[in-house]
Formats: sequence, C-alpha cells, structure tokens
Amino acid sequence: MDLKQIARRAKQAAVTLAALDSRIKDKAINAMAQALERRASDILAANQADLQAAARNDLAAPLRKRLKFDEAKIEEACGGLRALAALPDPVGRTLRAVELDHGLELYQVTCPIGVVGVIFESRPDALVQIASLCLKSGNAALLKGGSEAAATNRILAEILAEAARRAAIPDGWMALLESRADVAAMLALDTEIDLIIPRGSNAFVRHIMENTRIPVMGHADGICHVYIDRSADIETAVRVCVDSKCQYPAVCNAAETFLVHAGVAADVLPSLAAALAERGVEIRGCERTTAYIQAVPATEADWRAEYLDLIVSIRIVASLEAAVAHINHYGSGHTDVIVTRDKDRARRFMDAVDSADVFANCSSRFADGFRFGLGAEVGISTHKIHARGPVGLEGMTIYKWRLIGSGQVVADYTGPDARPFTHRPLNKPYR
Amino acid sequence: MDLKQIARRAKQAAVTLAALDSRIKDKAINAMAQALERRASDILAANQADLQAAARNDLAAPLRKRLKFDEAKIEEACGGLRALAALPDPVGRTLRAVELDHGLELYQVTCPIGVVGVIFESRPDALVQIASLCLKSGNAALLKGGSEAAATNRILAEILAEAARRAAIPDGWMALLESRADVAAMLALDTEIDLIIPRGSNAFVRHIMENTRIPVMGHADGICHVYIDRSADIETAVRVCVDSKCQYPAVCNAAETFLVHAGVAADVLPSLAAALAERGVEIRGCERTTAYIQAVPATEADWRAEYLDLIVSIRIVASLEAAVAHINHYGSGHTDVIVTRDKDRARRFMDAVDSADVFANCSSRFADGFRFGLGAEVGISTHKIHARGPVGLEGMTIYKWRLIGSGQVVADYTGPDARPFTHRPLNKPYR
Repeated sequence: MDLKQIARRAKQAAVTLAALDSRIKDKAINAMAQALERRASDILAANQADLQAAARNDLAAPLRKRLKFDEAKIEEACGGLRALAALPDPVGRTLRAVELDHGLELYQVTCPIGVVGVIFESRPDALVQIASLCLKSGNAALLKGGSEAAATNRILAEILAEAARRAAIPDGWMALLESRADVAAMLALDTEIDLIIPRGSNAFVRHIMENTRIPVMGHADGICHVYIDRSADIETAVRVCVDSKCQYPAVCNAAETFLVHAGVAADVLPSLAAALAERGVEIRGCERTTAYIQAVPATEADWRAEYLDLIVSIRIVASLEAAVAHINHYGSGHTDVIVTRDKDRARRFMDAVDSADVFANCSSRFADGFRFGLGAEVGISTHKIHARGPVGLEGMTIYKWRLIGSGQVVADYTGPDARPFTHRPLNKPYR
Repeated sequence: MDLKQIARRAKQAAVTLAALDSRIKDKAINAMAQALERRASDILAANQADLQAAARNDLAAPLRKRLKFDEAKIEEACGGLRALAALPDPVGRTLRAVELDHGLELYQVTCPIGVVGVIFESRPDALVQIASLCLKSGNAALLKGGSEAAATNRILAEILAEAARRAAIPDGWMALLESRADVAAMLALDTEIDLIIPRGSNAFVRHIMENTRIPVMGHADGICHVYIDRSADIETAVRVCVDSKCQYPAVCNAAETFLVHAGVAADVLPSLAAALAERGVEIRGCERTTAYIQAVPATEADWRAEYLDLIVSIRIVASLEAAVAHINHYGSGHTDVIVTRDKDRARRFMDAVDSADVFANCSSRFADGFRFGLGAEVGISTHKIHARGPVGLEGMTIYKWRLIGSGQVVADYTGPDARPFTHRPLNKPYR
C-alpha cells in the first residue's frame, strides 16, 4: 500500500472510530498495556538491535539513553496506558445545548479531529503515548518515529495494532511510517490528513510548517524568559532562574534569557551569577549587566537564541513594560515567568505577555502536560488558535453542531410574520 | 503608514486590549451605536455616493441591493451593537483551575487571539458587525471591505474608531485597508497577524488559503446535502428539501445535492420534482433518478458543484452508509441534513458525516450564528481545528495557562525523593 492508500484507509477508520463507545476504546487501551507486558522480551530484543545499531553508528550518548526501552520503561508506558484508559472520554461531551424553537434542539458536541499525522523523536515510549492518545480521542493516527528506533517502533506498533484489533478497533486506525519519503508524501495529503503534529528540532518543525497546507500544531522555538521584577524576592528569583535554566537545559521549556529590573540588578545579579557559575552556566550579558557581573557581551543574536545548553543571556530592563516588550518581540510565545512579590504586577505581566504559558514565581520547567495534570501530552503548541501550551486529549478534539428538528424550515422564521426563536438554554447533554 | 506599520500598531494595541475591563469594551460598543445614530446623515450621504458609483459601473442589481445602507439598516446595526454589548465577555473565562501543589495554582483562562485580518464582501453592515465582534473579544482588527462600499466603509470606520477612542480603547486597534495591494501585503505579515478570516467567493477564499502562512478561518465551498432516508416522512422531506434549496439559493448553507434512499425513491421523487418545478429549479439526476422523474443527466462534476442557483443534483443511494460515503467524499464539511423518522439512523448519520453542522429533519439554512443563538457571527468555518460551523465570539478567543507559584522549582518534583503533585481541582475562577 502506498501512503495515499494508507491515509485513505485511516480516513475510513476514523469514521467508525468517531462513533465508538468509550468502553470499547478503554478496553483496547488496557489490552495494549497487557500485550506490552506479555511481549516484553520481544520488545527488549528489538530495542537491543536498535541500541547495537546506534553503537555502530556512534550515536551520541544522550540520544542512546533516550533510545533505551528497558523493563522499567515498559512498566512506565503501561502505567501511562492504564491511567489514560481511566480518564473521561473527551469525545461526545456536550459543550452547549440550546432550544432554537419548540422541537428544534441544537447541541454542540465534541468529536475527534479525524486523521492526525504525528512525527516524533527517537524515544520509543512516544509511540505508545501518542498512539493511545489518538485512540482515546477517536483519531486515526499516522505515526513516524525516529529512524534510530525503527526496530523498537515496529514491534511496538505491531503489538498495539494487534491488541486494538482484538478489542474491535477498526483496522487501519494506526499506521507506522518508516521512511523520510513517507513524511514528505504525508505533507501533500491535505484532503486525507486533518492535522500534523511535528515534534523535534526547531529546524525540523519549521521545515514541516513551511511545506504543507495541512494545519500544524506544535512549536519550533522555545525561547523562554524569566523576568526578575523590582519587587522580586531575591532568593526566590535565584532559585527559579537556576531551575528554569539548569534542571534540564536541552528542552523547550528551559529558560534562555533572564530579564532583570534595573532597580534590583545590584541586589540580584551577584548571587545569581554565583549560583549559575556553580552549575557551569556561561552568561552573556547586556552592557549594563557587565557593570555588575562578569559576562560575555551579548549581541542581538543572543536575544533570539535557543541555546538548549548551559548558556544564558541576561538583560537589564528599565520597567515591567520593557520586559514585556522584550518578551513579545524576541520570545517564541512558549513559557515566560515573572518573579515578583507584587500580585498586581504579576497580573499585569501575565495579561500582557502573549505566550501560551505565563507563570509567576515558579520555574518555566513546569510547562508540561503531565505536571499540569492533563494526563499525557501530545506536544506543546505555540500557535494562537485551537490549542495552546501543553496539548492533552482535549486538544485532539473539535466539535460538531447537531441540530435535531421535526420538519422546521427557515422560511417560517423569515420575513414580516417570522416565528421568533426561543434560544432557551437546555440543561441536558446530547443523547 | 504602510501596512506593516499599521499591523505593528495593531499588535501593540492588542496587548492593551487583551487586559481591558469588560465594562470599558461594552461602553465603547454602546458608544459606537450612539455615534452611528448621531451621524446617520453622513453615513447615508456616503452610501449614496457608493450607490451612484455602482449605477455608473452597471453593478448587478443584487449587489446594489446588498450595498444599500439606509436608515433601517443603520438601526439594525445599532441593535446588533447593543445586543453584543449585553453579551458576557468571552475573555477572562476560567476554563480549568487545578492546584498542582500547595501554593502552586494553575488556571486556563480565555484570552483574545491577537491581531485578526478580516476581508469581507460589500455589505457595509459587515464592517460594523466584524469590528465590534473583534473589540468585544479583545482582538485588534485589520478590515478590508468590498471596494464598491469604499465611501460607506470609510465613514463607518471613522465613526467607530472615534467612538472607541473617546471610550478609551487604545488607538490602532482597528484599521481599514482600502486596496487589493493591502490584502496581498497582509498575507505576508505572519509575525504581526494571528488569524485571517476571508469572506466571499469560493475562488477568493481558496486564493487566500493558498497564499499565506497565517492560519485562515472560513470556508471555500458550501456543498450541502439533504439525505432522504428510507424511513423519512415524505411530506417533511419535500418541505426540508425545498427550503434548503430555494429559501436563499445564493448562500453557502443552501443545499446543492439531494440523496434519496432507493427504498423511498418511488414515493418521494414525483412530489419532490413537482415542488421543485413550482419554484423553477432545474434537476440534474443520476441514471436511476431519471427512471422516476424528468431530469438532466448528472455528471461527476455535478456532485462537486456549488451551484448557488436554482439547480439541484439528485442521486439515488442504496443505503445510509452510501449516503454518508457520498457526503464525506464530495461534500465540503459545511452542513448536511438527514430526513428520517428513525432516531437511531439519524444518530448514525450525524456520527458518521464529517461536517461542521449535521442536522436531522430541518433545513440546512439554519446553519447560521444568529439562528444558532450565538449573537453575531464572524463567519462559518469548515476547518477541523479551532472553531467549526458558525463562529461567534468564542471562536475569536484562545486561552493562556496562568501558573501562580510561591517559589516552586521542578527539581523538587523530580527524582527518587520527588514531591508528588496534588492535581486537585480548584472550584474558583482566576482573579
């Protein structure tokens, strides 16, 4: 089957998936967990093959670590599946119910998006998480994992598909794509695929966004800021900055720039610099910063840089408004933090910063679906429509308007003798 | 000012707009109504100029009718403004509130999208409606109206902007674009503009969608179907079909194709054909249809045609599933109707048809924001993300995640001694 046929089959399956009873989906997800446990040795063997190939190809150590899928990771994935099965069904929720007239009832009801293409990095647990999120939300899934994890992904996809089939999920709801050519072909299938979710490097995500007419959900840059306000608690500021930068520097929700109100620069910069030095962080500072601490002089490029490394840029700003302006100009709309003891100023910052996540007095690293309590996440969106920030099950749904009449026609509601609409809220869900 | 400067100014204004108190926005919208009434004679004079130009240019009668903006239309627009002011603010609604841990509270709160570009047809009331919807939802608006209404639009925009300015709305929140070159330039401003809403002809909307990286909300085709099920009430079927096709054939929610279950074709087709003939509707039928009634033989192109005229295609199908397959294949995801007395079959149809609006036993012409009780509508979306069907105020908003902490860092919630998250629902809105 070529990709177009695979996608059409997925579209066909999506029609059935959309109407599936919650219990059938949850049973299938629990069966997936059981099947993964039962076939653990096959999974470990496939993962060994990927790890050996990675060693032969001199893959960098952090990548090899992410590739590893051992018994503990299998158990973690199964725990995730069971937790997902226990969550309420995001499909079929009545968002609004209105009587338009006697015997003419309108229901806005959530439904799946349809066919979703997800391209993800080399962590094999991503495949389990994404496939099950798609199933729970009633979406058909075309999945392309990292080529380094090819053998592991293949066995995982096989196990999940088989478990789903036995649980009466329609064939074709999930397909594993294995080549880069498939990704390129996927981008052209705008009548078959409803949404693409790319996860991976900045350049990769940007490439996807620029080469398809299909809506894309995700983020390219993660240029996150911590702004230390003039009324910040110094000790809190240092702790939040260090965690935001150092707790896991290689990820999108790590901070790249600290903005410091001029009024507290003298108080905070020396202890901040000391704490960063202890963690081996290189500082690139604006001219005023270098008057207080040692720093490499920052250039314009530093304000736009996503280092993903133990490097941070620091800029002194004259006001909260200047901090906001910097963030809205150079930021990526991902996650931005204010440290302040002043609740009103926190609110002003959070109102004005145009980002998916706006935090006060805590680390930017909290920007994550699991930490937010959404269950699993399919990715983090910096777009400004549909879903923003960590995207869980809800972001994988849309809605339909269901209007149930008894023969009504618009002609009766038009003109000089028009029947009026009642527009009375109905306190009942669609059944 | 060139368009880029205008758009940047709008982006700047959007930051202030996003945090504006509801009362200020509503006061401004009411002030707009007052100002339109006060300056009615200026508006009528400008509209006269447009109408005279239209006569000189031999504009078609229906277009001239839509262009006309008389005292009744002004009153209607003012009524719409006052109704809008009375609606609840779509911005600042708490969608979710969760305690992540003691003193670490997460709020998902609605906010405006930012800067919205709207391109609309020659009805001057569209300008008033769209500008006020944008203001109410806190969005800055770049508006391009039909060139035939240039003088009317100019005076309306001037009056609305002046009323808003006096009510303390930040300057630059609304700008009127006047040339086609501005539209082309707008499509390139993907860092300044967050959403484009094109209204108008199929070809025009398609052109917009194919020429910008900015998300587009709207619809190109409106190929709507009425499916007459085997358990349809014949009289209801005829009434719904006639209204769906004839009540206003030139609009997107008018039906273009009737699908008839083979089991009722003999019963329904003769009376349907008679009712359509009475209205002067041309019928293009599939081969089986022509066995029952007189019809021009339909070709493949007819199933994809949006006639927007008194022409309809009719196809006999073997089953509900065949009707669904036809609609999902040839339809445009706009509005599709089933006529049936069987509730289960209605539900099956509505589950499986992948359209924004799925109706049972009523006319497709009900697909409209006002009829749905949404207040005004900014357009109808056939996209499968963000907003679907008639889009009112809610579709003009997105949300931010606001996380309020007291110094928490992720390091404390990681590793073997990780603090657990409480993930306790908070029954309070963000304040």
